[in-house]
Amino acid sequence: MATDLRTSELKEPVDVAEYLFRRLREVGVRSIHGLPGDYNLVALDYISKNGLKWVGNANELNAGYAADGYARVKGISALVTTFGVGELSAVNAIAGAYSEYVPVVHIVGYPSTISQRNGMLLHHTLGNGDFRVFSNISREISCAVAMLNDAHEAATLIDDAIRKCYLLSRPVYISLPTDIVQKKVEGERLKTPIDLNFPPNDAEKEDYVVSVVLKYLQSAKNPVILVDACAIRHRALNEVHKLVEKSGIPTFVAPMGKGAINETLPNYGGVYAGDGSNTGVRERVESADLVLSIGAIKSDFNTAGFTYQVSQLNTIDFHSSYVRVKYSEYPGVRMNGVLRKVTAQMGQLSIQAGPTPNNEIPQEELLSPEPTITQAWFWPRLGQWLQPEDIVITETGTANFGSWETRFPRDVTAISQVLWGSIGYATGSCQGAALAAKDLAAEAGADQVPRRTILFTGDGSFQLTAQEVGTMLRNGLNPIIFVICNEGYTIERYIHGWDADYNDVQPWDYKAVPAALGGRPDQLATYVVKSRQQTEELFMDREFVDPKCKKLRFVEIYMDRDDAPKVLKMTAEAAARTNAKLE
Amino acid sequence: MATDLRTSELKEPVDVAEYLFRRLREVGVRSIHGLPGDYNLVALDYISKNGLKWVGNANELNAGYAADGYARVKGISALVTTFGVGELSAVNAIAGAYSEYVPVVHIVGYPSTISQRNGMLLHHTLGNGDFRVFSNISREISCAVAMLNDAHEAATLIDDAIRKCYLLSRPVYISLPTDIVQKKVEGERLKTPIDLNFPPNDAEKEDYVVSVVLKYLQSAKNPVILVDACAIRHRALNEVHKLVEKSGIPTFVAPMGKGAINETLPNYGGVYAGDGSNTGVRERVESADLVLSIGAIKSDFNTAGFTYQVSQLNTIDFHSSYVRVKYSEYPGVRMNGVLRKVTAQMGQLSIQAGPTPNNEIPQEELLSPEPTITQAWFWPRLGQWLQPEDIVITETGTANFGSWETRFPRDVTAISQVLWGSIGYATGSCQGAALAAKDLAAEAGADQVPRRTILFTGDGSFQLTAQEVGTMLRNGLNPIIFVICNEGYTIERYIHGWDADYNDVQPWDYKAVPAALGGRPDQLATYVVKSRQQTEELFMDREFVDPKCKKLRFVEIYMDRDDAPKVLKMTAEAAARTNAKLE
Ligand SMILES: Cc1ncc(C[n+]2csc(CCOP(=O)(O)OP(=O)(O)O)c2C)c(N)n1
Ligand SMILES: Cc1ncc(C[n+]2csc(CCOP(=O)(O)OP(=O)(O)O)c2C)c(N)n1
Ligand SMILES: [Mg+2]
Ligand SMILES: [Mg+2]
Repeated sequence: MATDLRTSELKEPVDVAEYLFRRLREVGVRSIHGLPGDYNLVALDYISKNGLKWVGNANELNAGYAADGYARVKGISALVTTFGVGELSAVNAIAGAYSEYVPVVHIVGYPSTISQRNGMLLHHTLGNGDFRVFSNISREISCAVAMLNDAHEAATLIDDAIRKCYLLSRPVYISLPTDIVQKKVEGERLKTPIDLNFPPNDAEKEDYVVSVVLKYLQSAKNPVILVDACAIRHRALNEVHKLVEKSGIPTFVAPMGKGAINETLPNYGGVYAGDGSNTGVRERVESADLVLSIGAIKSDFNTAGFTYQVSQLNTIDFHSSYVRVKYSEYPGVRMNGVLRKVTAQMGQLSIQAGPTPNNEIPQEELLSPEPTITQAWFWPRLGQWLQPEDIVITETGTANFGSWETRFPRDVTAISQVLWGSIGYATGSCQGAALAAKDLAAEAGADQVPRRTILFTGDGSFQLTAQEVGTMLRNGLNPIIFVICNEGYTIERYIHGWDADYNDVQPWDYKAVPAALGGRPDQLATYVVKSRQQTEELFMDREFVDPKCKKLRFVEIYMDRDDAPKVLKMTAEAAARTNAKLE
Repeated sequence: MATDLRTSELKEPVDVAEYLFRRLREVGVRSIHGLPGDYNLVALDYISKNGLKWVGNANELNAGYAADGYARVKGISALVTTFGVGELSAVNAIAGAYSEYVPVVHIVGYPSTISQRNGMLLHHTLGNGDFRVFSNISREISCAVAMLNDAHEAATLIDDAIRKCYLLSRPVYISLPTDIVQKKVEGERLKTPIDLNFPPNDAEKEDYVVSVVLKYLQSAKNPVILVDACAIRHRALNEVHKLVEKSGIPTFVAPMGKGAINETLPNYGGVYAGDGSNTGVRERVESADLVLSIGAIKSDFNTAGFTYQVSQLNTIDFHSSYVRVKYSEYPGVRMNGVLRKVTAQMGQLSIQAGPTPNNEIPQEELLSPEPTITQAWFWPRLGQWLQPEDIVITETGTANFGSWETRFPRDVTAISQVLWGSIGYATGSCQGAALAAKDLAAEAGADQVPRRTILFTGDGSFQLTAQEVGTMLRNGLNPIIFVICNEGYTIERYIHGWDADYNDVQPWDYKAVPAALGGRPDQLATYVVKSRQQTEELFMDREFVDPKCKKLRFVEIYMDRDDAPKVLKMTAEAAARTNAKLE
């Protein structure tokens, strides 16, 4: 058995793999995503032994997406793959998590350190004896890389990697060679949890920034708050909620910030994205004399093609690693502490109310005698149907842009990849999110009903990662899945190639997919809706809407090939212009 | 429209994208694999205009695998993906092509050079303005990287990349920014084809090596030839075939060299892989006083766990970049020229016959009253059923190891990933291989029937990339697909975790998959075989066996969970030992 020279000196020797999985459990992970491979098999034995569940995905890219979705709901996640073939399949998912600040611990089963040292010509290598190539690749998209080549430093490296993953909210890479799995490390360390507190700001500096912010805030005549992705991803929502509720300042979200704010609050005003803003929002935001911009990511798709138009002279930016007031930067100051103090000290403010969004369906859509499900009709209508605490996942394509027009009930979590925008993501992510909801419910008590997880994906996007529906079934998950059937890549048509065959896809029999992936009748219900009437009926179907329904519910929803949300059209045109620009 | 300062100086201005696709056509590419994305859409318009076909895969990893399969049959292939999300999804496929020497031209649609220079916060970026991260990743697994950031050098870079791809037989990476697609380059260059000849060896050095080889060959009493992957991948098969046929020397293949030799030749002796050799082969090869080893890759799975036992003192190694006689190395000498001269000059040799493999089913299997399809029965039986010129693809798992016991008819092409071993590869590769066979037949004449493409994959492996069956249907391909249903990851069970749930998979209804992916009855036939008797009936079914049958034929073939080819058991045990080894 695995022994170590130092074992005798250890007070409570535990195997490296046990140490790792116990740490993951400690920080909130309950299920581990991934696929087996001979370089990780022995490590996988430690998963159930340490109170964790193995998901068993269909492939590694999907597993990576699922881990991303799990982390967005549960706070952090873990993914296990095998050397070379497994880990490289997940690179796109990890890059997405890096881009969008999602904390995923990626554990890669490595050949033994002896084989590595001897440069052995093993399967899953490039045949050149170089065992660092793959970690070099992951280094580009990880905020820490821990190569566990020596048991003596393994525990320290593991703790450090998990801590960075959580605090920086980005993926980390941990190599676990076969001969290290059962080496002994000091188990007594486990009595002290990893410190996941954000290092506090320098007090004097923080107070200084607070005073500057307060000065501008108190003298502002019509301030607004604009909340974006980093407020969610960098765990500042508590502070943001208190500020929004106490101050009553009109509050808006960027598309990537959807779900950050309780949209039923009286001072919630809708989505701001320049030209792509909800009705009335643009005027209010752009005429504000002060914008408290929290966690902004001003990417093209998050601003309807760089049509964001707020002067920096009217802006205070709050971020995880700095605050900026107009053009004065305060590096090293994290937003959380500043927002807390601003909320506590702000006093009476001058507030001018903003627009109030509703879930009303546009007049012309309501009056239309057309039975067709239009994008303009569907997304506001959806907002009326959603329930508090739903988890809503929207794929890049008409779905994500459509959801800008969906007003959520309270406590909805929205998941999408507005910046990274990898299609196929949403289906994988749905598996992880639904499992996280289930794990959360289990932690909360035996009779807890998990939150509903609802996926909206496109027919094109669904094809990339469809097999994860099988993984959902295997894990007893019951999400509601809408596949928008519109004959291919509609979003791409709006950018270029309206009738080009490269924007068509193979016409699948989508509703047949879940059964082909092993869904039994008691696990599964499928629906086809082609008209508004049928959608209305579906939205009233008792089994379909019930959070307690144990079945995975799969809907083919038909929309026109040439129909798209207005904001998508604008953003697509802007993207086409940017792509075509010549010097 | 796109213009360029220099356009007026060009004799025959053509757009960069046209130049690129015409070059690809020139070197033999007829179909382009990949997926659209807004950064490559305009470039895709040039595909059909230049006499090429767009495949339209379901996702990029699958597209990469398909491009690999296409290249193995057609000589070279091309893959188009979009920046970030698309290209990174294909990294594992490209790494596999790098590892196994497969020439794939990977073209990535990039944001415009202007956006790159301005570090714009675009979708599909890491949000940090760094546009080099993804090419850095691909650099690790490409033999050339051509960043087309300037029209002035685009043509030269394209020619150089395609030439390296072909000659080094490895992937290359070409970035194609949106604003470069329609820039003009000199079309007159296209009148001179890219030189794809291997640079000849230094004549004196080559003659010297030939004389040394001849000296040993002529004095050898019982030489053998051992052919491996690099003989295929580095395009030395013509030379090898002549040597084998003219000399009559007993000839063997390593598993990765399967298909390199006409297995009906009287001097073909079977597979050599140490402990995993065909009957009688090990004795003959290891007792030879000289082994002409051509294109060897002595990896673990190619040698049944490093049980290859031929003394270097009895070996002459032929490679693409050097020859080695015993311990004397001759760098810079390519095998092709040497083999040609050796064949021409060898004279009369002393030959001792070797074993003759057959397709006989082992006696105990023939006598067994068991109806179950055993691995020991199936693979030799398959050899009797295959037809000349079949393309046989075997997935990592019981399928690939099983095929070591299948004796092929003449001119069979075997495709597998013995070194890289990424599961899911085989299904993607099957799409590319079948399309290459179709493209080759079309080039040969309108009435040509394409070679049959036959895939053997495992139930576990099939799940990773199943959607490519839809792409096959979309492209009118008619491969024969066997999915070996044995309740999960049998090969992994033999390494570790016999009953572990991580070696189980979600039980799919495999035969329902092709129809769910859009297969119409006129395109598709499905079969289920659970006994030897049913297998025999299938092998006699007229439609099923017919190369002219236009249908995709999909077979669920059932084998025991705990059954595996003997050579797999050995290799798995050796892998487990290597993984477990401690210092
Ligand atoms: C992995 C990946 N490949 C390619 C793309 C380019 N792309 C962006 S959206 C899209 C089409 C999405 O089509 P669909 O899911 O059908 O959405 P809809 O028709 O509703 O717009 C494509 C191909 C991408 N974003 N990610
Ligand atoms: C992309 C990738 N992920 C994981 C592995 C590890 N692995 C190797 S073989 C295998 C199981 C294959 O199972 P199956 O296809 O059912 O084959 P069989 O049961 O016939 O052995 C796995 C998971 C791999 N080689 N590649
Ligand atoms: Mg669509
Ligand atoms: Mg299997």
